[in-house]
Amino acid sequence: MAHKTAPDAGRRSERSRRATLEAALELVGEVGYPKLTIEAIAARAGVGKQTIYRWWPSKAAVLLDAFAALGEQAAAEAGESEIPDTGDLEADLKLVVRATVDELTSPRYDVPARALAAEGVVNPELGAEFVSRLLEPSLQLYVRRLRAAQEAGQAAPHLDPRVALELLVGPITHRWLLRTLPLSHAYADTLVETALHGIAPR
Amino acid sequence: MAHKTAPDAGRRSERSRRATLEAALELVGEVGYPKLTIEAIAARAGVGKQTIYRWWPSKAAVLLDAFAALGEQAAAEAGESEIPDTGDLEADLKLVVRATVDELTSPRYDVPARALAAEGVVNPELGAEFVSRLLEPSLQLYVRRLRAAQEAGQAAPHLDPRVALELLVGPITHRWLLRTLPLSHAYADTLVETALHGIAPR
Repeated sequence: MAHKTAPDAGRRSERSRRATLEAALELVGEVGYPKLTIEAIAARAGVGKQTIYRWWPSKAAVLLDAFAALGEQAAAEAGESEIPDTGDLEADLKLVVRATVDELTSPRYDVPARALAAEGVVNPELGAEFVSRLLEPSLQLYVRRLRAAQEAGQAAPHLDPRVALELLVGPITHRWLLRTLPLSHAYADTLVETALHGIAPR
Repeated sequence: MAHKTAPDAGRRSERSRRATLEAALELVGEVGYPKLTIEAIAARAGVGKQTIYRWWPSKAAVLLDAFAALGEQAAAEAGESEIPDTGDLEADLKLVVRATVDELTSPRYDVPARALAAEGVVNPELGAEFVSRLLEPSLQLYVRRLRAAQEAGQAAPHLDPRVALELLVGPITHRWLLRTLPLSHAYADTLVETALHGIAPR
């Protein structure tokens, strides 16, 4: 029966890993980043503290993996990782900005993501890890879609796509973090139209 | 000599008020909002705790007044409170967005404002007070300037100015809070040009 040990252990490990990430997301939303501890994550996940330390060096590392897993899950559910290219830039951007609104307003994401974002605002090391590991890869999806649009003549040729994408994610993040005005699909559509066509008259 | 008491007391009060606001800004940057206390503000300001409680009901109230005073001081130094209207929308917006970049990157504002912003992200009551009392009035300056631009034919007539201004303040806030890329005058100019002329080719 010894040969069965490895697969069982693998399944147990995977269960522990998922339980740990899930517990980290729940707890950071409940107590905030400063009060989050590996002990509390271990207790909530029903795993040993040493198990967590074997895989992750810090609570920041657990939490960043938890958000990465959440993002991968969302991408898997959406069935794709790139922004679609139907040839219609406006329609494609509305689709992705609406999906971002849905993600930001879902309690499963909103509560833990706010706790992480708040800490990143005052903790430059954590903020930089969040940006390089989680945010920047998703922004590069916009860069690629906008480059394709430039090649197709649907985006102004001289624009820096990295600056252009901030016209979309900047206002969405502003409304989300500061809760100034509602985040809705109607707003997502208006934002895409305003960013594409600009403030000046055509 | 009794008639001299009132003016002296008034000067003392004003000195205590300023010292309290200054101490609140310094301390929130040093210890963060959750650990900020009225006791520590009183000690740093060299005023009695009861003096602070006589004027402000809470540490949040002290801090919001401190930021309001900082904003009024900046407006007084700039010599005006409205966004200038020279008839050239692009030039006027570049001026104000550059000034915003300067403010956000000055240590005197950046450190305490980050501490307050971080707390507002996870504390909806404080966030709402920050938005209604400090942020929204400054956004209304953009609304008025953009309405004037619409009347002058320099902004698209159908735009909602409240949405349009987010193309400017959203990306700036995104770079500032998340520290994704540098905030510079060159970026301010590029942002204004991109927001005015849009992503789509003209």
